[in-house]
Amino acid sequence: MADTLEYDLIVIGGGPAGYAGAIRAGQLGKKVACIELERAGGTCLNWGCIPTKALLKSADLYQKIKKSETFGITVKDVTFDFAKVMERSRGVAGQMAKGIEFLFKKNKVDYFTGKARVIAAGMVEITEGEHKGKFFKTKNTLIATGCKMRRIPDLALDGVRVMTSREALANTKLPKSIVIVGAGAIGVEFAYFYNAFGTKVTLVEMLNQVLPVEDEEVSKVLQKSLEKQGITILTGTKCENFRVGKDSVKVDLVTGDKKQEVESEVVLSAIGVVANIEGVIADAVKIELDRNYVKVGDDYQTNIKGIYAAGDIIGPPWLAHVATFEAVSCVNGMFGHGKAKRVTKFPGCTYCQPQVSSTGLTEKAAKEKKLDYKVGKFPFTASGKAVASADSEGFVKVITDAKTGEIYGAHIIGSEATELIAEYGLAIELEATVDEIHQTIHAHPTLSEAVMEAAAASLGEAIHI
Amino acid sequence: MADTLEYDLIVIGGGPAGYAGAIRAGQLGKKVACIELERAGGTCLNWGCIPTKALLKSADLYQKIKKSETFGITVKDVTFDFAKVMERSRGVAGQMAKGIEFLFKKNKVDYFTGKARVIAAGMVEITEGEHKGKFFKTKNTLIATGCKMRRIPDLALDGVRVMTSREALANTKLPKSIVIVGAGAIGVEFAYFYNAFGTKVTLVEMLNQVLPVEDEEVSKVLQKSLEKQGITILTGTKCENFRVGKDSVKVDLVTGDKKQEVESEVVLSAIGVVANIEGVIADAVKIELDRNYVKVGDDYQTNIKGIYAAGDIIGPPWLAHVATFEAVSCVNGMFGHGKAKRVTKFPGCTYCQPQVSSTGLTEKAAKEKKLDYKVGKFPFTASGKAVASADSEGFVKVITDAKTGEIYGAHIIGSEATELIAEYGLAIELEATVDEIHQTIHAHPTLSEAVMEAAAASLGEAIHI
Repeated sequence: MADTLEYDLIVIGGGPAGYAGAIRAGQLGKKVACIELERAGGTCLNWGCIPTKALLKSADLYQKIKKSETFGITVKDVTFDFAKVMERSRGVAGQMAKGIEFLFKKNKVDYFTGKARVIAAGMVEITEGEHKGKFFKTKNTLIATGCKMRRIPDLALDGVRVMTSREALANTKLPKSIVIVGAGAIGVEFAYFYNAFGTKVTLVEMLNQVLPVEDEEVSKVLQKSLEKQGITILTGTKCENFRVGKDSVKVDLVTGDKKQEVESEVVLSAIGVVANIEGVIADAVKIELDRNYVKVGDDYQTNIKGIYAAGDIIGPPWLAHVATFEAVSCVNGMFGHGKAKRVTKFPGCTYCQPQVSSTGLTEKAAKEKKLDYKVGKFPFTASGKAVASADSEGFVKVITDAKTGEIYGAHIIGSEATELIAEYGLAIELEATVDEIHQTIHAHPTLSEAVMEAAAASLGEAIHI
Repeated sequence: MADTLEYDLIVIGGGPAGYAGAIRAGQLGKKVACIELERAGGTCLNWGCIPTKALLKSADLYQKIKKSETFGITVKDVTFDFAKVMERSRGVAGQMAKGIEFLFKKNKVDYFTGKARVIAAGMVEITEGEHKGKFFKTKNTLIATGCKMRRIPDLALDGVRVMTSREALANTKLPKSIVIVGAGAIGVEFAYFYNAFGTKVTLVEMLNQVLPVEDEEVSKVLQKSLEKQGITILTGTKCENFRVGKDSVKVDLVTGDKKQEVESEVVLSAIGVVANIEGVIADAVKIELDRNYVKVGDDYQTNIKGIYAAGDIIGPPWLAHVATFEAVSCVNGMFGHGKAKRVTKFPGCTYCQPQVSSTGLTEKAAKEKKLDYKVGKFPFTASGKAVASADSEGFVKVITDAKTGEIYGAHIIGSEATELIAEYGLAIELEATVDEIHQTIHAHPTLSEAVMEAAAASLGEAIHI
């Protein structure tokens, strides 16, 4: 096999897990290649986190401009070019993807596009694409193929009437109306985005709250806010009997005993993800799976020595930052740079306005675990910075051990919530107490003071409420 | 003395130190009164931090609207009503001041307006205002009278041609041109603000960099950015020979051997503060001062038992958040709720765009102390969130102990820098290492990832640069 290339590590998949793992191996001086099916950066960078944030930035600005009178600014004739909004988002994704390719070069990662398959322990083949037929001999393999959007059963994805977030990100025509199925982070962000630009949005969630993984109290405030913004929200509701027509889709929304028909120009499916596993592992390679996700041990190794997996392909929570951490930790362990560490603590974010973020246990989870907990809460209406910014919706909520003050969980809804959660993330990582946060001087006036005051509130010592 | 009221604590001054100390005493069940000369909230809330943030929010929005085309949004005829911008700022200050009065009531703090004077240990008198002649007997007194703006010697403050930030905050007419003397946080913020609305701004600093207390590298990037925005900046420059005319002020700006005359509609003095000490202490009470600031010990007690002082009146760093911490800590110690703690670690913020924030040592200070330090730096151009927001100016810089990774200082310039610094504040308080920050999963995509990547960079392990 003259064409066989030899590596210390082959990474399959160039998303947040794959590219980070490959770069880390490069930093450690290893001979490494990354094989990506589409474009460096994966779903997150090309069809997820990054391009949606670009869209949301346009939506935020458009909303702010509409409220500019509050700030002494008068604007006439505010218009938007939806195609340009979308185009900018693609541009940002393109720029970031080029950045990853640059990082590959800088860190001496060989980069191949194509579909890769593990054909044996220590052997990988490219089965599709321009490098089809290339074989790689490798000491280690890291499977990081991630996930793709789950489709609604029996509803064909046509990219016109029926979309997932992926098709929506490429769609340059603003729909007049949309039914969004699923009110997780993706569903909520698209609902906020389309509504901001004037689409009639119906957001449907099967479970009893929007953002089902978040604290109930947060979800309630968010739902109220989104409804006030004009979004129709139906929780505890199933979608049945989709009828795709030429210009619209009809669907029955079933809430308990009630059934209503809704007609919209587009249906967006945001009902979660499924593993990208098809064709990744040759039949002969008996890698253990669990509901199509790759099973790994504490060191991210599969049941087959030398074959590792990290990121969305090993199962929930399907978050880019968790994927990156896993892959880097896996590669560090693989090459003896410290011990690999599985993820137990991580933040989650939703980038609508008001933003939502959290880390650790919800109050409900603390209750279910029968923990002896206290709650500290601080509303942004009592924050000088929030009032000065005319952006005082929401609150910070911290759940602590009633005896020791150790932090079980933190939940933020409001402006910049996604940035503010970082401090609680560090606090939980370091097993800090709320008293330690309270004793840390926070700059005035900042929203981060609310993080401190919520901690103080759990001790009965908040000054500003 | 039938009119004598008896208290556990009399607080003189209702600013960030005074009101917080009084509220804390109320929380501890003490009989407490707060005497404020003007309006609850003090300079910070009425004439400083809070109203300026309201102004800066208007400026930020106006600037963003001008760039809205980038985001696919078209706006015609953007105008502003400067009087309305100023009016909103006053409204925010008024609202927050009312909030403090509400907190006084809630925490059973008796609130008096008037000028107070310590006439003996345990005795306070109101010497001016509606309550003039009221006497208070008190177990403890907390002097928290703060500071006021320093005036330029031999230059009369007329509120029209010559102002400090206080007069500027009440001035509803946008000046065509302004010379701002002093490029500390206040000078820089006003320079950014006026320039954003079209004033021709000349910012003059005697020392060799804008924001002289900040890291040199940060100040250089900021100066470049402000100059690009249109502000004329002269560092290492003295102002001499002000000539106030009917419609303008002329001043000689002397940089080394060069002298140039500049004429502007207004001169804003932002050259620091002086203690509000006049008339606060009766001559008979021999409280020890140091250059007009009240000298205190580790428990914030002056040389006279039962008389304490906290906040700006005890000297630098003259920051609202430090003042609040000091007063609360002082009151806690006073009433046996833990031990009072003097401040050694605190953040500093400047709210222009790009924002600047820091905590701990600058690189120069680390060098001067001959510390064995490392630098970790991460530019926002490499942050997905910053690029998606089209806001990728600046960087995060962390200075660490080369051996242990303990954090000596952190410096941020960029969007939301003032919020991002909180995490480093907690890290320094907890004596965390950069490795611990690096091992904490930060949400993707957020600007807070740059905080983590700078930490990783100091270890040679940043993924995205």
